[in-house]
Amino acid sequence: MSLTMNTLALPKQMTHIEITQPGGPDVLQPRTVGLPHPGPGELLVRVHAAGVNRPDVMQRMGVYPMPPGVTSVPGLEIAGEVVALGEGSSGFAVGDAVCALTEGGGYAEYCTVPVTQTLPVPAGLSMVQAAAIPETYFTVWANVFDAGALRREQTVLIHGGTSGIGSTAVRLSKERGARVLVTDDGPDKCQAALNLGADIAIDFRRQDFVEQVSLATSGRGVDMVVDIVGGAYFERNVAALARDGRLVLIGFLGGEVAERVNLLTIALKRLTVTGSTMRARTATEKADIAQRLQAAVWPAMAQGRCVPPVHAVFPLTQAAEAHRLMESGGHVGKIVLQVA
Amino acid sequence: MSLTMNTLALPKQMTHIEITQPGGPDVLQPRTVGLPHPGPGELLVRVHAAGVNRPDVMQRMGVYPMPPGVTSVPGLEIAGEVVALGEGSSGFAVGDAVCALTEGGGYAEYCTVPVTQTLPVPAGLSMVQAAAIPETYFTVWANVFDAGALRREQTVLIHGGTSGIGSTAVRLSKERGARVLVTDDGPDKCQAALNLGADIAIDFRRQDFVEQVSLATSGRGVDMVVDIVGGAYFERNVAALARDGRLVLIGFLGGEVAERVNLLTIALKRLTVTGSTMRARTATEKADIAQRLQAAVWPAMAQGRCVPPVHAVFPLTQAAEAHRLMESGGHVGKIVLQVA
Repeated sequence: MSLTMNTLALPKQMTHIEITQPGGPDVLQPRTVGLPHPGPGELLVRVHAAGVNRPDVMQRMGVYPMPPGVTSVPGLEIAGEVVALGEGSSGFAVGDAVCALTEGGGYAEYCTVPVTQTLPVPAGLSMVQAAAIPETYFTVWANVFDAGALRREQTVLIHGGTSGIGSTAVRLSKERGARVLVTDDGPDKCQAALNLGADIAIDFRRQDFVEQVSLATSGRGVDMVVDIVGGAYFERNVAALARDGRLVLIGFLGGEVAERVNLLTIALKRLTVTGSTMRARTATEKADIAQRLQAAVWPAMAQGRCVPPVHAVFPLTQAAEAHRLMESGGHVGKIVLQVA
Repeated sequence: MSLTMNTLALPKQMTHIEITQPGGPDVLQPRTVGLPHPGPGELLVRVHAAGVNRPDVMQRMGVYPMPPGVTSVPGLEIAGEVVALGEGSSGFAVGDAVCALTEGGGYAEYCTVPVTQTLPVPAGLSMVQAAAIPETYFTVWANVFDAGALRREQTVLIHGGTSGIGSTAVRLSKERGARVLVTDDGPDKCQAALNLGADIAIDFRRQDFVEQVSLATSGRGVDMVVDIVGGAYFERNVAALARDGRLVLIGFLGGEVAERVNLLTIALKRLTVTGSTMRARTATEKADIAQRLQAAVWPAMAQGRCVPPVHAVFPLTQAAEAHRLMESGGHVGKIVLQVA
């Protein structure tokens, strides 16, 4: 057997959450199944906590563009304990406390993950906190810092400053010395975004963000917009950007399609419109992001900075409740499933 | 007097071309006016030849977004002889043969140009050829190589392969080792594009370029699209791009507005949509482009490569005829006004 596995300690069966059919939160149902086996380059992790993300909700509704060949069990990030190593997996040992960006399947008591997408639980963080890291930290790091190269003293506008992506973008952007403007829904969430570190919070129910950006930047505009809204905001995002600005499309809560896009404006202001989804990236790309993220952010977390805000924790079997909360939009920061 | 000026040799008056009012080619009228004076950091050039560009046509029609503070006389590029240096202008001497990216005013017997946007006439090129360089070479260099970083072995699709921008993009992309696909209008222009160096020419009247790109790249798509069409091509440009591809918007012959942009596709394929106009750039940016362009391309031109194709030459006073030809779309490469 090519596995290094503490087989005595492992049960034959486990609970995971299935999407019984596309639909509302109640299609998330616990099922008893056999344990997955770690393939070459993978680890088997006993999951202590699993993060809940917006793409999970879209997947549950049947509208997420799934990459080919991945499990249909939801769950893009976990934290837990390594219990077995697949062939050729090195860098971790059985018993290590890790967090990982999965290929899906995180809503489960056991999950296999690529070793290259696995990082140690940052010093001082709980399993629940660690499970709240991978999906948004990988995504924000890749888009805002790797590709976007947001620099000190630059100004970034982050839509939904208290969302999973938003709160991560606020924390990391402040850590890197940028000036951070956010939009959010109502005074309470705006205050929560300021508490996360944002310099200015714009209440999108009462204020026009293009106007507020103009006021806050003496008419110059922002260097970057980190957007989870998409179609509904596109024209105003372009208006809010400074010359040479960058629009980073990460989410599409306001629709996937922008109508009547003025391309000449993009050229005259020399904007860059780009975006990415983490799931569509190759294993090599994710491995590279993991390394850069760890080098840049793990030391800060060890000092108590850049820690993900966790809004609510549900037992694994109540995944449906977790989804209901996410869909209500009432959360500030991350929602996590406690598994063990 | 702080100018170094061969004043004895200079006339008091000159001819330039005015746009008497927004309209058709006939609004371009010769007028006799005083010579311009070179300001600090400028050169006065006796113009031998002036390039004609699409933005000149748009300016004549009154639809070009002019930067503030520039002359209303058209003409974005010239070649000629330095006859005077403004205060603090160094690097060139009276009598030098130069070509330059102007701030406008090239359709004239004399024109002032920033010394930082002035380059020597490449060895072996005529004044007419040299006048055909600056606008499209600066634009293509900045978009395709500086910002876009097109690399050897990558594949680029260039729309309008025999246009001014297109022919320059073909020449420079081949010089840099890329694989070049072009679209063009009918078999004659397609053949002309192949003669310029394109590897594959797609006749957009008979062939669907997305299909042809797919065939030519085994379904992968191109790494970059250099586009002068804009709105009408946007959706198909996105379809023709490979993962991580880049759409560079330089011209808008097919409209400034894309009716429907699927932002999710941009994120899933991780595309970059960007663009720029040369006129909107700062003097410092243009100076930087000039230096990199000279270093990379002047040696190739001295060896007979990357020479701009000149389709037709008109006397300055027949600028209207030059515009009529450009609007007919019958040209392959550049149209130039001969001044002296």
